[in-house]
Amino acid sequence: MSTPATRSRENTRARLLEAAAQVFAEVGLDGASVEAVCERAGFTRGAFYSNFESKDELFLMLAASVSEVRVSAVRARVEQLTADGALAEGCDPIELVQQIMELGGDDRLGVMLMSEIRIRALRDPEFGAAYLVQESEMVGSIAQIIEDIVSAGPLQLRLPAETAARMLMILWEGMTVRGAMAGLDDAQLRHSGSEQLGRLVQLFIEL
Amino acid sequence: MSTPATRSRENTRARLLEAAAQVFAEVGLDGASVEAVCERAGFTRGAFYSNFESKDELFLMLAASVSEVRVSAVRARVEQLTADGALAEGCDPIELVQQIMELGGDDRLGVMLMSEIRIRALRDPEFGAAYLVQESEMVGSIAQIIEDIVSAGPLQLRLPAETAARMLMILWEGMTVRGAMAGLDDAQLRHSGSEQLGRLVQLFIEL
Repeated sequence: MSTPATRSRENTRARLLEAAAQVFAEVGLDGASVEAVCERAGFTRGAFYSNFESKDELFLMLAASVSEVRVSAVRARVEQLTADGALAEGCDPIELVQQIMELGGDDRLGVMLMSEIRIRALRDPEFGAAYLVQESEMVGSIAQIIEDIVSAGPLQLRLPAETAARMLMILWEGMTVRGAMAGLDDAQLRHSGSEQLGRLVQLFIEL
Repeated sequence: MSTPATRSRENTRARLLEAAAQVFAEVGLDGASVEAVCERAGFTRGAFYSNFESKDELFLMLAASVSEVRVSAVRARVEQLTADGALAEGCDPIELVQQIMELGGDDRLGVMLMSEIRIRALRDPEFGAAYLVQESEMVGSIAQIIEDIVSAGPLQLRLPAETAARMLMILWEGMTVRGAMAGLDDAQLRHSGSEQLGRLVQLFIEL
């Protein structure tokens, strides 16, 4: 059970993450200072450093929370489809992927944020290691969702769920990055990779 | 037939591209100025601007030339395998991909260069459009190689060659970026994604 003290701490962290997202949107990752984030959130630097070790940790947590919201939305949708019996008869993989992207879909700012974070992870070995740990957790969550879909229906996977999850994540990322480069707006971005992803999902399934 | 004048022009461009790669390795994309590249190559700014419109165009050409060298190496290897009759009996896709990555494989600097260029393409719509045109040409070259492999042997593709080429390119990119984040050296990087890519190639093939 959460105490008032932990609720207050969670609230502080949530406000700092929200402020970090806003400051990032305005000035990018390099430009976003701890000072600017504190000012936006209305907290002192002391409050910041009792919640996060560094700017790097803040943005890694922001990336994690963005991923978690998406994965949770997808999981809830799959649970609903399972409860409705929609997966038991098998379903069109492209349609399923489109529904999932609509829910868990990226927006332009999310694409920019994750791209800037990956560049940072490439430049700094310590940050890179932390990013990869976090990403592996997300891959694990996606793999679990894939296993739930498979066990609810007649489909058989041609490869391990975790390998499939990693391929899906990388292809999704690559397609949304290209969509953002092409200047697609948020609504278009949610559909941009779904045909490619749907084709990949078809390949995963035993004929 | 190339005249002495066009040969000299090609030589100037090649030296500027080589200098750009060196300066990038030392100070990154944001830090690499036209001045520094000219100084390294031993040319004036006048010589630079009679060959390239801008720093952006220089680095886009550098990315193109890196990609071309890799794709050419892969194409030559496939042609040799075809001439040897090695593709006619069918071959282990994972082994084929490993051979190809060994030849066309990324190094750490190449991964950094392409990642920095993609961030630039995300930030600047004009550069983004130019990047996507160039990338589509590379996808076309990879698709042609895939079609050559398929037509040389008993394999059947489950999806259009161009879709397969795009998936391979994005997965390759994603896996080598993760390899570089994990601190792999150049030799390790060449193998890092080959298992995943081999699995993807297996999925492409009709059972």
